[in-house]
Amino acid sequence: MKKIITISREFGGGGRTIGKRLAEELGVPCYDSEIIEKVAIESGFAEEYIKDKGEYTYPSLLMGLLMSRSLYTGPSNEDKIWLIQCKIIKELAEKGPCVIVGRCADYILRERDDVMKVFIHADIKARAKRIVEVYGETDEDPIKRLRDKDKRRAAYYTQYTDIVWGASRNYDVCLDSSVIGIDRCVSVLKEIALETE
Amino acid sequence: MKKIITISREFGGGGRTIGKRLAEELGVPCYDSEIIEKVAIESGFAEEYIKDKGEYTYPSLLMGLLMSRSLYTGPSNEDKIWLIQCKIIKELAEKGPCVIVGRCADYILRERDDVMKVFIHADIKARAKRIVEVYGETDEDPIKRLRDKDKRRAAYYTQYTDIVWGASRNYDVCLDSSVIGIDRCVSVLKEIALETE
Repeated sequence: MKKIITISREFGGGGRTIGKRLAEELGVPCYDSEIIEKVAIESGFAEEYIKDKGEYTYPSLLMGLLMSRSLYTGPSNEDKIWLIQCKIIKELAEKGPCVIVGRCADYILRERDDVMKVFIHADIKARAKRIVEVYGETDEDPIKRLRDKDKRRAAYYTQYTDIVWGASRNYDVCLDSSVIGIDRCVSVLKEIALETE
Repeated sequence: MKKIITISREFGGGGRTIGKRLAEELGVPCYDSEIIEKVAIESGFAEEYIKDKGEYTYPSLLMGLLMSRSLYTGPSNEDKIWLIQCKIIKELAEKGPCVIVGRCADYILRERDDVMKVFIHADIKARAKRIVEVYGETDEDPIKRLRDKDKRRAAYYTQYTDIVWGASRNYDVCLDSSVIGIDRCVSVLKEIALETE
């Protein structure tokens, strides 16, 4: 069995739900908001701030320069959060079998050979419906918001990892949750996790 | 059940084997070399020529200009093959449930809603081992050959479709056959195909 399962996901694609349910099925902990809490304690930053800065950045060079202070005052807040996040995720993985949702855990744990790397994506219309219905997002234009989130998350990966976010070759399994359904995603991932050495 | 399953694949990743075995399990035909034969009959080109020109092109603009005659003598051979390939794949899909390996069938059948789009990839070292062992490839540097094939196949997708080859969002399921194993890929895909509406 692959001991650690990382779930990278598009916002609104149900990756978090899949991760939680998969962890329940496998009887292992699921680390999601717990990581943010730990980073908050260790860094002193607010959880909401970490939630954003630990997974999103701005894609353009100009925005990058404007947002980052690393060029003239040492590491930026994002850099500090990144380093603490790396440390915490490695510590959690050391504890034993688990599911880790988001936070670039696939990249952070790349040197371990007991990690199953999953990517959950979904049709943008299904995601828009989901963020309004399930998450209670009240944005007038959820599709615009999703596109912005996708861009910023991809940019974060570009900045902190050598992974192209969402490129299938970086993952063992990629599933479209809007086609396959949340339940089937969970059962398929469980089967693969249990049967893969 | 999704009636038609398209399998896009990296060269040497076992996608063809997975497609054949999946079709056997589902009791439906698997179209692979049959497409090439049909394109050969309809176009007059040799099968070996179609095998290459119906899925590969050169990535650079210069090579594109050198290889393509479309700028000054009408459609190139590649363009002719593309059009015939599109027609044949659409006709095969009309016949009933099937598995179609390669030839951009995912893109060609994009307007149907009964297609399950699969991408099979694998670690490059595993692919190199496979092309030497299973396909009997005798290249001295199989990794170099694979990289060249990957580039040329990606370029073909860029030229003829609006799909980024290997980007997970274009597929319902992407699997790394070198991690999951051929057998498990077949069983997982069978489960998803049978259970997905």
